[in-house]
Amino acid sequence: MPFDRLEQDIKMMKEAGINCVRIAESTWSTVEPQDNVFDFKHIDRVLDAMYKANIKVIIGTPTYAVPTWLVKKHPSVLATTANGQYQYGARQKMDITNEHFRLHAERVIRKIMEHVKDHPAIIGYQVDNETKHYDTAGDNVQKAFVASMKEKFTLDSLNSAFGLDYWSNRINNWDDFPSTVGSINASLNAEFSKFQRKLVTDFLAWQTAIIKEYAKPNQFVTHNFDLDWRGFSYGIQTDVNHFDAAKALDIAGVDIYHPTQDHLTGIEISFAGDLARSMKGGKNYFVIETEAQGFPQWVPYPGQLRLQAFSHLASGANMVAYWHWHSIHNSAETYWKGLLSHDFEPNPTYNEAKTIGKDFQRLSSKLINLKKKNDVALLFSNEAQTAFNNFEMVFKTKYNDVLRPYYDALFKMNVGVDFIDPSVTDFSGYKLIVVPVLYAAPDELLERLNAFVAKGGHIVYSFQSGSSNENVKVRSSIQPGIINKACGITYSQFTVPENVSLKDDPFNVGAENKIHTFMELIKPSTAKVLAYYDHPVWKDYAAITENIYGKGLATYVGAMTSEKLLEAVMKDVVKKAGLWDVKQNLAFPIITKDGINSEGKTIRYIMNYSDKSVEMKYPFSKGTELLTNQKISKDEQLTLAPWNVKIIEIEGK
Amino acid sequence: MPFDRLEQDIKMMKEAGINCVRIAESTWSTVEPQDNVFDFKHIDRVLDAMYKANIKVIIGTPTYAVPTWLVKKHPSVLATTANGQYQYGARQKMDITNEHFRLHAERVIRKIMEHVKDHPAIIGYQVDNETKHYDTAGDNVQKAFVASMKEKFTLDSLNSAFGLDYWSNRINNWDDFPSTVGSINASLNAEFSKFQRKLVTDFLAWQTAIIKEYAKPNQFVTHNFDLDWRGFSYGIQTDVNHFDAAKALDIAGVDIYHPTQDHLTGIEISFAGDLARSMKGGKNYFVIETEAQGFPQWVPYPGQLRLQAFSHLASGANMVAYWHWHSIHNSAETYWKGLLSHDFEPNPTYNEAKTIGKDFQRLSSKLINLKKKNDVALLFSNEAQTAFNNFEMVFKTKYNDVLRPYYDALFKMNVGVDFIDPSVTDFSGYKLIVVPVLYAAPDELLERLNAFVAKGGHIVYSFQSGSSNENVKVRSSIQPGIINKACGITYSQFTVPENVSLKDDPFNVGAENKIHTFMELIKPSTAKVLAYYDHPVWKDYAAITENIYGKGLATYVGAMTSEKLLEAVMKDVVKKAGLWDVKQNLAFPIITKDGINSEGKTIRYIMNYSDKSVEMKYPFSKGTELLTNQKISKDEQLTLAPWNVKIIEIEGK
Amino acid sequence: MPFDRLEQDIKMMKEAGINCVRIAESTWSTVEPQDNVFDFKHIDRVLDAMYKANIKVIIGTPTYAVPTWLVKKHPSVLATTANGQYQYGARQKMDITNEHFRLHAERVIRKIMEHVKDHPAIIGYQVDNETKHYDTAGDNVQKAFVASMKEKFTLDSLNSAFGLDYWSNRINNWDDFPSTVGSINASLNAEFSKFQRKLVTDFLAWQTAIIKEYAKPNQFVTHNFDLDWRGFSYGIQTDVNHFDAAKALDIAGVDIYHPTQDHLTGIEISFAGDLARSMKGGKNYFVIETEAQGFPQWVPYPGQLRLQAFSHLASGANMVAYWHWHSIHNSAETYWKGLLSHDFEPNPTYNEAKTIGKDFQRLSSKLINLKKKNDVALLFSNEAQTAFNNFEMVFKTKYNDVLRPYYDALFKMNVGVDFIDPSVTDFSGYKLIVVPVLYAAPDELLERLNAFVAKGGHIVYSFQSGSSNENVKVRSSIQPGIINKACGITYSQFTVPENVSLKDDPFNVGAENKIHTFMELIKPSTAKVLAYYDHPVWKDYAAITENIYGKGLATYVGAMTSEKLLEAVMKDVVKKAGLWDVKQNLAFPIITKDGINSEGKTIRYIMNYSDKSVEMKYPFSKGTELLTNQKISKDEQLTLAPWNVKIIEIEGK
Repeated sequence: MPFDRLEQDIKMMKEAGINCVRIAESTWSTVEPQDNVFDFKHIDRVLDAMYKANIKVIIGTPTYAVPTWLVKKHPSVLATTANGQYQYGARQKMDITNEHFRLHAERVIRKIMEHVKDHPAIIGYQVDNETKHYDTAGDNVQKAFVASMKEKFTLDSLNSAFGLDYWSNRINNWDDFPSTVGSINASLNAEFSKFQRKLVTDFLAWQTAIIKEYAKPNQFVTHNFDLDWRGFSYGIQTDVNHFDAAKALDIAGVDIYHPTQDHLTGIEISFAGDLARSMKGGKNYFVIETEAQGFPQWVPYPGQLRLQAFSHLASGANMVAYWHWHSIHNSAETYWKGLLSHDFEPNPTYNEAKTIGKDFQRLSSKLINLKKKNDVALLFSNEAQTAFNNFEMVFKTKYNDVLRPYYDALFKMNVGVDFIDPSVTDFSGYKLIVVPVLYAAPDELLERLNAFVAKGGHIVYSFQSGSSNENVKVRSSIQPGIINKACGITYSQFTVPENVSLKDDPFNVGAENKIHTFMELIKPSTAKVLAYYDHPVWKDYAAITENIYGKGLATYVGAMTSEKLLEAVMKDVVKKAGLWDVKQNLAFPIITKDGINSEGKTIRYIMNYSDKSVEMKYPFSKGTELLTNQKISKDEQLTLAPWNVKIIEIEGK
Repeated sequence: MPFDRLEQDIKMMKEAGINCVRIAESTWSTVEPQDNVFDFKHIDRVLDAMYKANIKVIIGTPTYAVPTWLVKKHPSVLATTANGQYQYGARQKMDITNEHFRLHAERVIRKIMEHVKDHPAIIGYQVDNETKHYDTAGDNVQKAFVASMKEKFTLDSLNSAFGLDYWSNRINNWDDFPSTVGSINASLNAEFSKFQRKLVTDFLAWQTAIIKEYAKPNQFVTHNFDLDWRGFSYGIQTDVNHFDAAKALDIAGVDIYHPTQDHLTGIEISFAGDLARSMKGGKNYFVIETEAQGFPQWVPYPGQLRLQAFSHLASGANMVAYWHWHSIHNSAETYWKGLLSHDFEPNPTYNEAKTIGKDFQRLSSKLINLKKKNDVALLFSNEAQTAFNNFEMVFKTKYNDVLRPYYDALFKMNVGVDFIDPSVTDFSGYKLIVVPVLYAAPDELLERLNAFVAKGGHIVYSFQSGSSNENVKVRSSIQPGIINKACGITYSQFTVPENVSLKDDPFNVGAENKIHTFMELIKPSTAKVLAYYDHPVWKDYAAITENIYGKGLATYVGAMTSEKLLEAVMKDVVKKAGLWDVKQNLAFPIITKDGINSEGKTIRYIMNYSDKSVEMKYPFSKGTELLTNQKISKDEQLTLAPWNVKIIEIEGK
Repeated sequence: MPFDRLEQDIKMMKEAGINCVRIAESTWSTVEPQDNVFDFKHIDRVLDAMYKANIKVIIGTPTYAVPTWLVKKHPSVLATTANGQYQYGARQKMDITNEHFRLHAERVIRKIMEHVKDHPAIIGYQVDNETKHYDTAGDNVQKAFVASMKEKFTLDSLNSAFGLDYWSNRINNWDDFPSTVGSINASLNAEFSKFQRKLVTDFLAWQTAIIKEYAKPNQFVTHNFDLDWRGFSYGIQTDVNHFDAAKALDIAGVDIYHPTQDHLTGIEISFAGDLARSMKGGKNYFVIETEAQGFPQWVPYPGQLRLQAFSHLASGANMVAYWHWHSIHNSAETYWKGLLSHDFEPNPTYNEAKTIGKDFQRLSSKLINLKKKNDVALLFSNEAQTAFNNFEMVFKTKYNDVLRPYYDALFKMNVGVDFIDPSVTDFSGYKLIVVPVLYAAPDELLERLNAFVAKGGHIVYSFQSGSSNENVKVRSSIQPGIINKACGITYSQFTVPENVSLKDDPFNVGAENKIHTFMELIKPSTAKVLAYYDHPVWKDYAAITENIYGKGLATYVGAMTSEKLLEAVMKDVVKKAGLWDVKQNLAFPIITKDGINSEGKTIRYIMNYSDKSVEMKYPFSKGTELLTNQKISKDEQLTLAPWNVKIIEIEGK
């Protein structure tokens, strides 16, 4: 901060309706300027000022960026990866398993907790920040990995399970175990990735346990998980097992960054929100970070900041927090701009935030704690992701590039989705499970999925589901492995489509009738073929099939399709699953989401993700639009201004 | 292998007519699970089973992938390159000169040989696998290189030959010799590359000598050479001197991988086959590896696997072997799919292989040992290749990108080609020698080429032939160096063409009349100009010339042309060399190849590399189509189905 | 040199009118073949021969390429950068601060100077060659950097100025100072870059001081500075502070390489020439290296070598020297072709050089020592450049990509330009100052620029001028920082334009009315808006403004525009600054430059940078065309052949 303006900042925060801030994160070098020398004056000052202003505080542990003195004293705290050891400078470059890092991290956390634990401004704690394993793979990590292997495998079972005979990689003595860094064995790579994800789970659980020793019963512990990054929050995070890591926490938190301006679709907000909500089994979550101005290309159009804020609530968020309050004047995130620009003056984005703050203050009792009951689940798997991505050279695509179009199709037709992962054993709440590229999975999971169909469930698989087992050994049984029973198909070959479409355009998508990247040459056994390939040679193979299995239906999509084509396929699936409803008659850019609030009322959001004004007949039960406090009845004409939102409290239960 | 099915595998092999397998390759960690502990049970079991089934076995030495224990014990076996030392994991990462590697490799080879040498199933041995030098350039290699330099040069002759004064690189004391790793001197780089190629020659000769101590007189030693890799077998291999390395072997072997589906042309099969046949002076060779299903994009269309198999025979192969029998279930080559998919079930590719096996069994006595007599040779040079590629920044293209279009043009007009390299001293068997980009060559070679023309030979040079000497010193004489005598031209400048074509489209190729990448500004002395450049400034310079020199004709192509343009130029060359024949009236996609079999009969292949049925008048002498056993007479109408082949045994001698 | 031909070379040089050569550069390994063993015979021989031929000699110190023995003895002479230590081979890989390098460099310089200092052929010396810091950043450099920081900052002022609290980078003890190599702090990176530039200044001053101990009063010391390299001399050099480094020298030198053929525009010659002339406050400079044939794509069209040579003189050069005389036959610059090709024969380029030599001999007394008085200055800043480029991920462009279009626009409308940098304190000679992207600047500089306007000056700023201070701390005042006073505007947000143009095409550029890459959302306070953005959302923000401030006018361009649009804006600026003249009615490809020669005469160049003949009415005062010795009067019809030049000595003073 170039000069002191705490009082002015708090005044402007209050004007914007901000009622909670997060502090202390990443301030290790300020809090502990030298080894075992502590200085809490900055924390104290802010805590007191916030308390006085009735702004709640979340204390973040400062451990995700290490101070200069620690690196000077213990250079090994910087992680060693396949590309060598990190240099000091950026955050998140430490080895989270390093003993010196752990000792010093524990001490600074305890010192902070001892100091702040009784402060009345604090409502909760955040452990670390967007923790991942940072590819740590040095000798100590390798040693721990081998120890974990010894617990799971004998040498014989290891060599056999991972096929290590190949290229003479066989390990005949545990002491011969080479570093995984040069490995070309996908099974070993996947196992090491799983081990690295467990390091993250363990690290967060360890920090949480320390915090819990000091925290009051009414204070929560959270963490801000982040997603696979493609310049924005894109998909499933490879480096963290979110469901596992979230177990230690009281409340799941998530950081959501997404395109805006002409590219704002609401998909990332919905995707990350559904994921965060699913981490703790449907519990409401915090959006701990999202953009205010963000990157230059993200400066929101008028109305977008509001639409975004309400979109988070519509997905079940109980907090929307911006990274960050004001733009900072030096270093890496200088142009990750906050609510305020560098000049600290009100600007269009801040001014719009003020309207959000006002509406939140007025309506939050109705809007928070929204509960959702979804009929549809999307099954993702870190194991499948790691394994599939290991073969990117073969499949020419990555896990999230297959998964996202399935999610996007459901989002665009207003189908509410929960995320589930292989640890979820109870499918009974769902009518339809969507399973993109479950490339690696244990028999048990696939058999459970078969049973779900047999009992009446609907399921959609993408290509390469069931291919390999939990050790990334390709199944030697008929493909698709095990699920061929429910799907009623087999294939033994697959190839790369060139100029391939679906014969006779069965889903009526015209110019969008296109296959790309990957196709399986499918033969139906009991399945009904929904689409054959249109190609001189492959024309007798099926592309998309469905199969009645027991009381249910299993659909299989054997190729990578255009987005529009997949949307048409999924529309058909949703209809056959009996889930087509009045909501589905709306469609992107009109998105509707709902839930039941604490008062037992249905709250319905209707959002316009476009720069065009949209006229529509309101198709739901009568209620009250909360932002305008106007009544609305079924079939009444409704106008949604560009980038606008309506929030209707439905009458009755 | 996920479960034992040796018996079933052999049954399916027999059904496919497979009569030879290669084993033991890359199994070091299985054969020698710990230092000096040996286990031959897998080898024994397969040898016995194959013998019982009357399937012959080639034993491969296991040395191209090192076991974990060896690396743990002697980390220096992993090669050090310009980018540091390799990590353990992938194959072919060892320093083939490392003393520990050599000691242990020798021991495991001897142990295997002692164990198997009397087994009756074995017909021969393969030393190592696709051996290259793997860029080994550590201190020990540098030391050996300097020692080899001392034998060839004095310091003065070295500094002068390589121009080391430049940028102060002069070496005034052998002890000052720096590592070549950072060298910017093309002469030094080329010399080091030559040294590295010699390491490969020496390594293969060393392994072969060990094998020969044990092998029976009727057992062969072979090796599977591979080509410059562009995602498939593309061109001349930079890292191995094939002619030199093949000397130690009894039979040359080659691995050939190529595009299929709509991209199957037969060129790579023909190119690599011609090269392998030429390695041992026209002796028949083995195709030790080629794809069955291979990469996803290579799954063959119906008919293609057959066409490919017969294409290999048509080029003179005496064996066609697939990598590999079944697809493997783990590790790097999981999706380099074999004849069988992971499910081990018959599939379209395997089923087609069965028809090949049947035809081979019936016809092999007529089809193997095909002898060829070609009038045309293509002269390649590893020295020219390394030197030219060293200046890729200048010439904006690489050696193989110049060479391949010349080969391709000949292939497409059904001109049979031998490969020759600078070690071939007798040109008397050839009427036409094609010389792409002989950038570095000793005076002696260029003078021999001049003499070949003087005596009546025809020759075609591409641009930059003759430019520099064997030490990659650009000649200070008139360019093109020495061959300007035969070519009757000079140039002193060259440039990069922008929007340049040939004046008045002298080769009638219409829209394909295009020059790109590189052009020399040629002045004829005695040459006839076949084409001038079409460009406002360069219009008075010649692009393509021919010159009568003694009794022969030398054609010079001074620029990089479009493929179609080069095909037209080469058509003209072939005609002027008096080699235009009935075969040349056919053209790609109809490819014809022939040879004389052991019975002295001419065997003629006619192949259709397209997805269209082709009607043609059979223009050759009468004979019998062997696959159908039908008579055929000259000028009879012949239909070639898509991707199909006819094999005609010509009547008479 | 493959064989001795000194006599023949000198003969051909004389024929080409060459009267000066540069020798000894980069010959350390020849001059000092072993540690402390010296051999001057090559130098002596050339000096004597040149003296005899009356060709003057510049002796270059040989220090920019180190000999093998030095690296063997002291491996630390090779610099360590963020990517590790350099390998031996290329030039310019040493640590210019290394004590061993310095000791040995000093000794070899002194030995050479002692040996040659009395030779009558020598007219001057060149210290080193295109010196830069080569990214040296090893431990010794870091230590020196920290020492320099201690002199400028206390720990508190450092942490505050650079914002090191962020991501815990705070330094609480000088001993904790980490290597800058991994830094993500733009302030620290910029400071380290400034320190590295000072290493270059110090190094050249140190060498110059040594030379001066020996040099005669009438011998000059120079250095050949080079520019930011984009495959040719593109823009401001990041790694050297040219104005600072040139202080020690007697005469500034510059190396200028540029596209030719259809891409010859004269811009690089003019740009680098204006820069070199400005280094020593308008003193004439040497073009120490420029291309003869150069890269293959640079072989000049007929006329271009002449046009280029006179272009250099037109900008104020007193020497035009080619790199190099003849093409060399080995190593890295084999195809950086000289006046002669490898064959040493006359060629079109050499032949054209002969005509230049003749004209120079005849006319040089009139053409050299041309003095210029420009009304326009372009202000560049190494500090702004480093800082702006540090945020390339944000701004999606680099400093020179913003600066060059401003220069180019002025060049194309024949406006003479001086370069100034922040060290220039006297603006009084200028009527217009052009300030592209002065991203980082101290308050004092911005206030001086405001004062310049207040006093009646005209100024043009690009976007992001004034943003941050000299420590790359973004200003927390209103943006644009400080200059908002003169510009009469503010902005608080900026974004990335998608399909944005200027409303109503105010500069009449039709299809070229385009904004790209970056745009600021500007609000005028007192400014007049020259252009609003044409975009549905941003339409109320200004893109380009001008503001009367005191007696002057400040124009602000808030976005990256198409080149044509910027040219139109600059045309407007030049007119409003009262600088539109008869020269400006000419325009690219007709370029005119002028100056006053030693006789007090105005010399005017009129150059045709195109392949079309151009007819024009000669609009200047009468005079004599010197190349043809023909009189020319005002309004006389003049024909400029393609790539041709006229040089008119104006009558009268």
